[in-house]
Amino acid sequence: MTPKVSRFLRDAAPATPCLVVDVDRVAENYGRLKAAMPLARIYYAVKANPAAPILGRLVDMQSCFDAASLEEVRLCLDAGARPEDISFGNTVKKESAIQAAYAAGVRMFAFDSEPELRKLARSAPGAKVYCRILVGNVGAEWPLSKKFGCEVEMARDLMVMARDLGLDPYGISFHVGSQQTRTAAYEAAIARVAMLFTDLKDAGINLRMANLGGGYPVRYRAEVPEIDAFGAAIMGAMVEHFGNALPEILIEPGRFIVGDAGVLSAEVVLVSRKEQDDPVRWVYLDIGRFGGLAETEGEAIKYAFRTPHDGGAEGPVTIAGPTCDSTDTLYEKSNYRLPLALDCGDRVELLSTGAYVTTYASQGFNGFAPLAEHYI
Amino acid sequence: MTPKVSRFLRDAAPATPCLVVDVDRVAENYGRLKAAMPLARIYYAVKANPAAPILGRLVDMQSCFDAASLEEVRLCLDAGARPEDISFGNTVKKESAIQAAYAAGVRMFAFDSEPELRKLARSAPGAKVYCRILVGNVGAEWPLSKKFGCEVEMARDLMVMARDLGLDPYGISFHVGSQQTRTAAYEAAIARVAMLFTDLKDAGINLRMANLGGGYPVRYRAEVPEIDAFGAAIMGAMVEHFGNALPEILIEPGRFIVGDAGVLSAEVVLVSRKEQDDPVRWVYLDIGRFGGLAETEGEAIKYAFRTPHDGGAEGPVTIAGPTCDSTDTLYEKSNYRLPLALDCGDRVELLSTGAYVTTYASQGFNGFAPLAEHYI
Repeated sequence: MTPKVSRFLRDAAPATPCLVVDVDRVAENYGRLKAAMPLARIYYAVKANPAAPILGRLVDMQSCFDAASLEEVRLCLDAGARPEDISFGNTVKKESAIQAAYAAGVRMFAFDSEPELRKLARSAPGAKVYCRILVGNVGAEWPLSKKFGCEVEMARDLMVMARDLGLDPYGISFHVGSQQTRTAAYEAAIARVAMLFTDLKDAGINLRMANLGGGYPVRYRAEVPEIDAFGAAIMGAMVEHFGNALPEILIEPGRFIVGDAGVLSAEVVLVSRKEQDDPVRWVYLDIGRFGGLAETEGEAIKYAFRTPHDGGAEGPVTIAGPTCDSTDTLYEKSNYRLPLALDCGDRVELLSTGAYVTTYASQGFNGFAPLAEHYI
Repeated sequence: MTPKVSRFLRDAAPATPCLVVDVDRVAENYGRLKAAMPLARIYYAVKANPAAPILGRLVDMQSCFDAASLEEVRLCLDAGARPEDISFGNTVKKESAIQAAYAAGVRMFAFDSEPELRKLARSAPGAKVYCRILVGNVGAEWPLSKKFGCEVEMARDLMVMARDLGLDPYGISFHVGSQQTRTAAYEAAIARVAMLFTDLKDAGINLRMANLGGGYPVRYRAEVPEIDAFGAAIMGAMVEHFGNALPEILIEPGRFIVGDAGVLSAEVVLVSRKEQDDPVRWVYLDIGRFGGLAETEGEAIKYAFRTPHDGGAEGPVTIAGPTCDSTDTLYEKSNYRLPLALDCGDRVELLSTGAYVTTYASQGFNGFAPLAEHYI
C-alpha cells in the first residue's frame, strides 16, 4: 500500500467496499517495466483496469494500448490515445466492431482463425494482422486454456493467406498465462515464434513483430521474481533465437502496471463459527466474488490482507463474500489466518487489487451496488 | 420457449445479447407450485431475478418475498409488497441494513450465529427470527457449502438465546442446494427440523415455522422430477415427522418461478478450429460467464440451445464467451454438440435462462455492456 493510498483511507474514510488506486504508482510501474525491457513497446492491457485516470496517465507516458473490444478502443481514444497506438487484441470480434475500429483509425488486429481473417480482409483492408499461437502456460497462477490461439502449422498457413487476402502479415503473438512466475514459459514460446519467422521467410513473408503478451507477475501473498531478472531472461531468449535480426517487440502488461497500485477497502460484516468449538471462524466481508473479486475463483489469486489487529494472535479462517450464493466464498483451502480480535464492523484492506477487479463486479447481484472506485 | 417469447424474438429481433422473460409464465409457475404445495407460503427468492415486472406480478398473486439485502427489501416495497410479507433471509447482514429494514416494517429475519442474533436483538427488537441449520446437499446441481447455516446443537442454544434476548424464536430453515433433483435431501432435513422442534419444546420454546428453502429444479438439458411429485414427497415427510401438529410452512423458490420463463438471445461471433483437422469446433457467443452466465462455472448448469440449423448434422463443440479471459468458457467437458452449419452472425437461444443471469452480469468486463432485458 503506497503512503498516498494509506493517507486517503485514513483521512477520507470512504464508504466500503471501494477500490483506491494510486495513479502515480501506475506511472512508476510503467517506468520500471520500460527500464527492464527497453526494446519492447508497451501495449497496456486495458481490460485490467480501464479507468480514465489510468488511461490518461499512460497516454501521457506514451504507452500504447491493447483493447479487447470496440468499447475499450473508444475508452482509449477518449483518453487521448492515437488510433495507431491501439491494437485490437481480441481474436474474436464481431465484424461490426472491426469496421468501427477501422473507421476510427485502428490498423492493428489479432486473429487466430480463418473466419476471423476473412472478416479482417473484408472490414479492415490492408491492416497489420498478427496471429496468436497456442503455447504452454505452466507456472501461471491464472493459466489460460486453448480458448485463444491456434496451432503453429495453422498459424503458418493463415499468415500466407493473410498476404493473399491483401492484409499486412505483421507478426505472431502468444500468451503464457496471467501471473506467470517462471521465465521458462516465455523461452519456450519465443523458440516457437522464431521457427515460424523462419518458415514464413521461406514462403516469402517477412514477419516484423513478436508480441510477447502479458503475464508479468505481481506480489500477492508469495514472493515473485523481480521484473529486471524477468526482462533479462526474456530478452536473452529473443537474442538467442533471433540474433541481431530482432523483430519489433510488443508486450501487453495489465496486472503488472495496475495491480499493486490498488487497495480494496472492505468491512467485516460477520465473524462466526458453525459450531461452538470449531477452530475455524467464518469471516464475511462486504465484497466477494461477485463484487469484483472474480479471480479468487478456485482460490487462484491469493490477495494479502491488512486488518486493524495485525500483530495480535491469529487463527484459521474461511473468508466469504456478502451474497446468498455459497460459491461467493473467497478462501477456504488456502490456509488463511486472521487475528482473533477481528470483529463485525472492522475495516480490512486487500492489497494489490488494482487489476481485474472493478469491471468484473456484477451490476447488482443480491442487490449490492457495484464497487466504488477512487483514483488519487 | 413460450409462444409469446418466440413471437417477440421473431418480430422485434432485439439486439443481442438480451434476455426475454414471459411474465405470464412466471405467474403460471407460481400457480403450479402453489397447487403442488397448498399448505406452504411462497417467499419468492428475489435474487433469482429482481426485475420490477416480475416482482409486481408476484405481488398481484399475493406472493411473499425472500430478500438477500436491504436493496432487495426496497425493490419489493417499491413493487408494492407489504413489509410483513418480506423475510430478510440472508444470515449475514450489516447492522445498518437490519435497522433500515426494521424501520421499513420488516419483522422476519434469518440468522445462524450468535453475533448476528445480537445485532437483531439490538436493531430489530421483538422480531420473528429463524435459525438456518446445515443440511446435506447431495443431489443438487448447484450445491451450497457450509457458508450458511450452523450445526443443530448450536441452533438449539441460539433459539433459547433468541428468546432471552427478547426476540420471537419463530422457526428453523434449511437449504438443500439449488436445482435439487432428489427429494431425499428434503426428507433428511425435515427430520432434523422436527427433532429441533421437540428439543426446544422441552426448553419451553414453541417453534411455529419450518422454512424449507428453495432448490426446486427446472428442466435444462436433462429431465427433472415433476413438481407435483416433489411437493407430495416433501409434504409426506412433513406429515410423517410432525403428524397433525404441522407448523407454518415457508418455501423460497427462485429458479422454479422464473427459470423457464426466460430465454437468452445471443449471436455467434466466431466458429473456428484450433488446427485444420480438429473435430471440435470452438463456438464463441456474444455472452459468456461474465455477461450473466455465471452458473456455467464448473459447467454446473447446462443450458439447452436452439439454433437456426437444428435438425441438420451436428458435431462436437466447445462453447465460449466473448471476453479475453479464458475462464470465460461455458462448456468444454459436457459433450455439447451443435449443427455443423452454424456460422458467424447466427442467432442462437439459450433456454430457461430466466433465473440467476441478469444480476450476475459484470458491469463492464472487457468493455461489454451488461445484458439487456425485456419483460413481456
